[in-house]
Amino acid sequence: MRIILDGMGGDNAPEEIVKGAVQAAAEIDHEIIIVGKPEAIKKELERNKYSGNRILIEPAEEVITMEDSPVKAIRRKKDSSLVVGLSMLRDGRGDMFVSAGNTGALVVGARLILGRIRGIDRPALASIYPNINGGEPGLLVDAGASSESKAKNLLEYALMGSIFVDKVWGRENPEVGLVNLGTEEGKGTSVTKDAFQMLKESHLNFVGNVEGRDVPKGACDVIVCDGFTGNVILKLTEGVAMSVFKRVKQALKSGIKSMIGGALVKSNLMALKDEFDYEEYGGAPVLGVTMPVIKMHGSSTAKAVASAIKRGIPYAEENVVDIIKEEMLKVEEYIEIEEE
Amino acid sequence: MRIILDGMGGDNAPEEIVKGAVQAAAEIDHEIIIVGKPEAIKKELERNKYSGNRILIEPAEEVITMEDSPVKAIRRKKDSSLVVGLSMLRDGRGDMFVSAGNTGALVVGARLILGRIRGIDRPALASIYPNINGGEPGLLVDAGASSESKAKNLLEYALMGSIFVDKVWGRENPEVGLVNLGTEEGKGTSVTKDAFQMLKESHLNFVGNVEGRDVPKGACDVIVCDGFTGNVILKLTEGVAMSVFKRVKQALKSGIKSMIGGALVKSNLMALKDEFDYEEYGGAPVLGVTMPVIKMHGSSTAKAVASAIKRGIPYAEENVVDIIKEEMLKVEEYIEIEEE
Repeated sequence: MRIILDGMGGDNAPEEIVKGAVQAAAEIDHEIIIVGKPEAIKKELERNKYSGNRILIEPAEEVITMEDSPVKAIRRKKDSSLVVGLSMLRDGRGDMFVSAGNTGALVVGARLILGRIRGIDRPALASIYPNINGGEPGLLVDAGASSESKAKNLLEYALMGSIFVDKVWGRENPEVGLVNLGTEEGKGTSVTKDAFQMLKESHLNFVGNVEGRDVPKGACDVIVCDGFTGNVILKLTEGVAMSVFKRVKQALKSGIKSMIGGALVKSNLMALKDEFDYEEYGGAPVLGVTMPVIKMHGSSTAKAVASAIKRGIPYAEENVVDIIKEEMLKVEEYIEIEEE
Repeated sequence: MRIILDGMGGDNAPEEIVKGAVQAAAEIDHEIIIVGKPEAIKKELERNKYSGNRILIEPAEEVITMEDSPVKAIRRKKDSSLVVGLSMLRDGRGDMFVSAGNTGALVVGARLILGRIRGIDRPALASIYPNINGGEPGLLVDAGASSESKAKNLLEYALMGSIFVDKVWGRENPEVGLVNLGTEEGKGTSVTKDAFQMLKESHLNFVGNVEGRDVPKGACDVIVCDGFTGNVILKLTEGVAMSVFKRVKQALKSGIKSMIGGALVKSNLMALKDEFDYEEYGGAPVLGVTMPVIKMHGSSTAKAVASAIKRGIPYAEENVVDIIKEEMLKVEEYIEIEEE
């Protein structure tokens, strides 16, 4: 198997990307093709004293930045690492594409260059959602690929997310929850009400509506919502958690007695903060396109890059895309009936 | 001025409600009419050794519970404390209604019994949103009165919220932010895009889009969003903050060294947790109906009840409803132009 890695995407490219590739290459048997400016990548490989033959370089001279408009960037920067990488994937020159680059451009590029799976109306961006109570994280779909969703889209997100969590994370029959403003059936917008019915009638392990207060407690394995809500949930969780940590730190510092106490508990707090570092869990998939694409956080470090590569492998090896294709054929008729 | 208090609404009624009324009565010069079962209320007044003449009782034998369906409850329980209290307000027998009862029933009841302000399409429920960085809290509108909103509704929420924060909280020219998935203009759903334009062209102090990660940091005074998003924001904030606190507590307990440290810092942490107790700030207004209505949290204690009564007074005394009415006449034409 060959992993195509965007060497120029993200805040720490190419340094941390290449370093992460070297770390991953030491632990896996697959080839990694780093796409980007050859000189820069070579320099980083040398700096990391890489002398193996499983990391290859594919030249691409342009870079899509975080500021680029997604659609324009995909159309105009044909020699960017992102466009070249996705095109290689489409042409069978690799089995999976991993990037820390511009999220919008990656989603748009995956849709335009790889195409959607038949029956999938809207590809989704998933995101790993930490379980603050300490258990396994969940997969939130959609994290913002589309800002508006129809009920049918929410069912698609649930279906794709379930298959991914089952096959890639190894959690059989994962629990699917629908983000809503109350747990009772019949709550919510017209879209969530309709989605509730579709999910209830589906073969998925649907546990019902989940409220905002239960999402961070690991209420379900697959957290289904529209991309607007998903974006708010992810950013708000980060904002609240980091603000609370900051305040706790301040509280620990105030008063001499507390300073002594604070020093003693500091190491425990740091260990806790690491748990929220969901980079550990690897990247998050773009779901609904015809080949495996993994999105890493824009500020990914080498450790996060290595983790995303290693943990992403089952997305390709377990034929997740093919399984989604088959499932979509099964539910296609059902969805069409439900829709009108 | 006369404050009408729902004596039977909320988890701790009538005990904490009456106790809160007694506490408030000691500090204010207004009359408080407690609506509910006379025997139960009398008993609580005696228990609290109340011997003044500024707390009156208005009989209402029925109780709307948290489980009641809002519309049905308002239509059928005519002798409930909530319906009787709102009817008294409508009939001029009081100047403000304060309740810890069923939120849905309060919003529906206010709309049906008091009526909407001319030009207001959808009354909103506001909620006090804590500033986790330690500053003043914000007012989030809509907290869930409607699950779906048009752009026009978001403008109404912004307008009403601004007037409330200015007149009741005494913050002149409050900053208004629109919850969205990016800070840049042009981001979001068709509704938030349109609302952005309307807000930008309005006379309000619109600071632009605010992302989920900035909301808990006190990004603006008036946080505008649809009721679905508002509900998710409020519950998620509670869920994340409480989960983080729980984990911090666990971290402090693990290891003997940390136990010593934990004991030392415990008091500081408790002080911090109190800050998130936004009950302190009083109740939250139902906005867009023709008279002042204040919603308290369902689990309000006496302290929260007293605080809601005292802090709610300017909602009536500062003629907030009249100011909203005047502003709506001014913007009416403008909104209609924008709408189609």
